[in-house]
Amino acid sequence: MTNIKSGKVSTTDIAAMDKQYRICLINSLLGYKSLNLLGTISEAGTTNLCVISSAFHLGANPPLIGMVMRPAREHNDTLRNIKATGQFTLNNVLPDWYKQAHQTSASYPSGVSEFGTCGFDEHYVAGFNAPFVAQSTVRVGLQLREIIPMEINQTSIVIGEIVEVLVNDALIGKDGTIDHVEAKTVTVAGLDAYFLPQSIARLAYAKPGIEPQELNQPG
Amino acid sequence: MTNIKSGKVSTTDIAAMDKQYRICLINSLLGYKSLNLLGTISEAGTTNLCVISSAFHLGANPPLIGMVMRPAREHNDTLRNIKATGQFTLNNVLPDWYKQAHQTSASYPSGVSEFGTCGFDEHYVAGFNAPFVAQSTVRVGLQLREIIPMEINQTSIVIGEIVEVLVNDALIGKDGTIDHVEAKTVTVAGLDAYFLPQSIARLAYAKPGIEPQELNQPG
Repeated sequence: MTNIKSGKVSTTDIAAMDKQYRICLINSLLGYKSLNLLGTISEAGTTNLCVISSAFHLGANPPLIGMVMRPAREHNDTLRNIKATGQFTLNNVLPDWYKQAHQTSASYPSGVSEFGTCGFDEHYVAGFNAPFVAQSTVRVGLQLREIIPMEINQTSIVIGEIVEVLVNDALIGKDGTIDHVEAKTVTVAGLDAYFLPQSIARLAYAKPGIEPQELNQPG
Repeated sequence: MTNIKSGKVSTTDIAAMDKQYRICLINSLLGYKSLNLLGTISEAGTTNLCVISSAFHLGANPPLIGMVMRPAREHNDTLRNIKATGQFTLNNVLPDWYKQAHQTSASYPSGVSEFGTCGFDEHYVAGFNAPFVAQSTVRVGLQLREIIPMEINQTSIVIGEIVEVLVNDALIGKDGTIDHVEAKTVTVAGLDAYFLPQSIARLAYAKPGIEPQELNQPG
């Protein structure tokens, strides 16, 4: 087992690391990550819920997100449901029940819904089949657009278009930015370290030769 | 201009939104994002630095990250440098100088280095050409593996393999997880809202039928 001894490690050191140490280190290198509960439903009507930290903004017009799906067992229901129904939801995680959100990462047998097992209520909107999390304050419904198989490590990058946004008006600032402090959104670093952020400031659009300016409005 | 009036908006509402409102809303939907300074160098030796919030964990073995590069003007130097040299760095952002990090998003003319202009020092390691940010506490050097052109919106997903990790030993927990509170890592939501997270807890690996357990160690 090779762990970090000095402040610098390179390729051969990384390859020689204990597997679990490497997973924890590499997963935590980029900092805080978007934390969401991913909701799906099978063609037979069985729901599925799993916590993910790999969703990323791909573009605003059309409104697109991407997310990485591992080839591992626990996500198979999710990816199969997305392929079968073409729909999924992303729901934020709150401090009151972040432990239940973490619990959705346990390897429940295929066909067991993490909604009921982990204590979440399903919420549906007309014209959209995938289940939202009733307890979340920021919820997004997505239509599958593309699945990119990554030959380099057998993961899949799933691209979805945002077709439903469920957010209370009070959480949205005048310019459209969601107030995640008011929404009580939790973030994660690495595999299992959960955090609640505190605002530093919002900054004005940056221009060459002009000092960075704080925006007064919180939202 | 159509903004959110009720708590639910769908595809046609999103398409009808004012462009800037849509950008702010869609960019902030997924919650907090990884915030990094992306360092590159041209073949002629001119460095470039820009703040990004689109880097994501792709896998631990091999150690891979992905990041979204927009087709827009300000990133052209960056993508050209990555293609030319095959290398780039990702460096975390600290509260003492997050405004300077934000300032790197300004549209400086091609050939002007944001290192000098925004007040950052370059740091180099033997055998690796791309510049690290001297002021950062968590720094990663990457080798280009793949560029995926996204036909759906003309962005590019850049895949890099982690070949250098520069982190002080004191910031790394026994299990390999980096302590981003000690590292003073800043996170971002939307385009310009900066935050400093506070720890809630770390949770043990989830197993079916076992209540979620807090881990005692902070790191």
